[in-house]
Amino acid sequence: MYSNFRVSRRSTLRMLTFFFGFTALSSFSSFAAELKYTEFTRLGDPAEVLEVKLEKSRPLASGEVRVKVLASPIHPSNLLQIAGKYGTMPALPSTPGSEGIGQVVEISSEVSGLSKGQLVLLVGGGTWRDEMVAPAGNFIPLPDMGAQSPEMIEQLSMAAINPLSALLMLNNFADLKEGDWIVHSAANSAVGGYIIQLAKRRGINTINVVRREGLAEDLMKKGGTVVLIDGPDLAAKIAKAAGESTVALAIDAVGGETFSRLAQSLEHGGTLVSYGVLSGKPAVFNPAMAIFNDIRIRGFWLSKWFETAGAKEKQAAFGQIIPLVASGAIKANVDSRFSVSEIKQAVARAAQRGRNGKVLIVPSAL
Amino acid sequence: MYSNFRVSRRSTLRMLTFFFGFTALSSFSSFAAELKYTEFTRLGDPAEVLEVKLEKSRPLASGEVRVKVLASPIHPSNLLQIAGKYGTMPALPSTPGSEGIGQVVEISSEVSGLSKGQLVLLVGGGTWRDEMVAPAGNFIPLPDMGAQSPEMIEQLSMAAINPLSALLMLNNFADLKEGDWIVHSAANSAVGGYIIQLAKRRGINTINVVRREGLAEDLMKKGGTVVLIDGPDLAAKIAKAAGESTVALAIDAVGGETFSRLAQSLEHGGTLVSYGVLSGKPAVFNPAMAIFNDIRIRGFWLSKWFETAGAKEKQAAFGQIIPLVASGAIKANVDSRFSVSEIKQAVARAAQRGRNGKVLIVPSAL
Repeated sequence: MYSNFRVSRRSTLRMLTFFFGFTALSSFSSFAAELKYTEFTRLGDPAEVLEVKLEKSRPLASGEVRVKVLASPIHPSNLLQIAGKYGTMPALPSTPGSEGIGQVVEISSEVSGLSKGQLVLLVGGGTWRDEMVAPAGNFIPLPDMGAQSPEMIEQLSMAAINPLSALLMLNNFADLKEGDWIVHSAANSAVGGYIIQLAKRRGINTINVVRREGLAEDLMKKGGTVVLIDGPDLAAKIAKAAGESTVALAIDAVGGETFSRLAQSLEHGGTLVSYGVLSGKPAVFNPAMAIFNDIRIRGFWLSKWFETAGAKEKQAAFGQIIPLVASGAIKANVDSRFSVSEIKQAVARAAQRGRNGKVLIVPSAL
Repeated sequence: MYSNFRVSRRSTLRMLTFFFGFTALSSFSSFAAELKYTEFTRLGDPAEVLEVKLEKSRPLASGEVRVKVLASPIHPSNLLQIAGKYGTMPALPSTPGSEGIGQVVEISSEVSGLSKGQLVLLVGGGTWRDEMVAPAGNFIPLPDMGAQSPEMIEQLSMAAINPLSALLMLNNFADLKEGDWIVHSAANSAVGGYIIQLAKRRGINTINVVRREGLAEDLMKKGGTVVLIDGPDLAAKIAKAAGESTVALAIDAVGGETFSRLAQSLEHGGTLVSYGVLSGKPAVFNPAMAIFNDIRIRGFWLSKWFETAGAKEKQAAFGQIIPLVASGAIKANVDSRFSVSEIKQAVARAAQRGRNGKVLIVPSAL
């Protein structure tokens, strides 16, 4: 009869889960290598619907890699997707988090090109967790750069989305030359910061539009040319700031009246690229701007770019961005760090206005 | 002493003008070949600010041509310009009218490539008049097509603007193939009619959006695929009409909610081209459409195309359009005809909703 009770640890856990419900599991984390991950089973306010769950570390299947998550940022797009307000609806239950950096801790025998201890970018989604077990293709190996400081680990955790978006928006919608002028809103966002730094490196002047006081010093230090506070007279202020020059490209993440004001500030034939609607408001657009001033409206969505760009194009883009991040040439501000179990506080902080940096999930102190 | 009174007829007229003021001149039209033309000296409601004036037929200067105006249409853009609501402000006083057809009646000795009796398109502006005296470059000679019916003269008077706009909007913003679907608003406008006919010739399906009942028969006869009445459910109706197909190109002349509905009805990566704002209302545009659906907004303004297109491109476009108009393959409806002296009634009629054709200025019965 004893043999009937010689069940595996896994079965034991299943039984205990059955008897005591989910929360009972946490008491086993000390001996069973229980790992925390984040999940949501319904759409809504992230601070309400996100749950911290536990999973047992499972053996690798063929072709899989085990990666310890070092850091993963919370992006506005993550919060929108959890709330069901994004371009794609998540299949529920869903594990949020779209990028990060990790360290390979185990490799299945079939995997080549990755080695234990190597730093990798996490690109397969579901990154707000302690550990990821996934096919090798979900990880982009970073070149060996020696030991990295905690600050650099954090910067690299944000390398695959925002700097890439900034690079592609600067490159793909206008033929900008040294000395040209561009304008962008939400200039204090992470993408905004990368736009400033990447533009500065090319000698492009940036008019940096923000919605509150107190940000100019940071943006000027990043390399901004002018910082303006948004308002009804924004287009006039932009014209004054550019002086004899005209503005060829506007990049907007705000929508609403800001979108319209940026469109108004463009030169004949200029393009407005929208990549966000932080105000939550649609734009009022006078078609006469398109007709008489040849203003062109475009959108940018990195997810679509990942879907449609060829391997060569992707390699070229990452090949530009990673060395810039890894050398400290471009960086983003970090507001605060939270562990996986603090996810509710983390997303609440990320949803607050008035921050000036990213909120990161850092599973264990770097 | 008699010789002192042997002044020229021209001087006599000048003196009479001085003594009796401008209106006195009209009594001389019988013997002095006084010609009517239209002018406005201030911006405003065309029916109020337009004046019929008289001028004496003057001798040609070197390089000039005298052309009897046969017919010239009233376009919405003319009315907007007179009202000061257009992309360019006229220098006052200004003579309105932007295209037409005429017949060469006199040529200065320096002019080559034009002959007496030849039909020409009027492209230099100021066409709502009895006679034009201008440099040869203001006239595009038409190939000798023999005697033309009054109907064909009228059709040719509208050949340089609306059909060209329709052709360029169909060609320059999307790579349309046989079997593709497009949607356009103000489908009963002259441009709309040419869009239908040109699309039909290429096997392109047109979803024709209008703002009132009673137009479907005419638009289907022109070659339209489907006629829809604008309304809040327009995007859904368009999707239903296209069935398994998607819509690659939307062409809008209305603005306001129509603009937004057409943008919503486009496929991923589709383009909305705006060429008018007949509703007088700006559009509400949700940037999420640009971001997630890659909807692109563009504008089209023929004046700018005339400014920037090369001679070869212009020749190619006219080379396609003129034979189609001259052969009767594409045509526009005519609502009514007015003489130059009836200009106030003519523009009042042109400003009325519910017409189904162009209002033409026809200086003397064809």
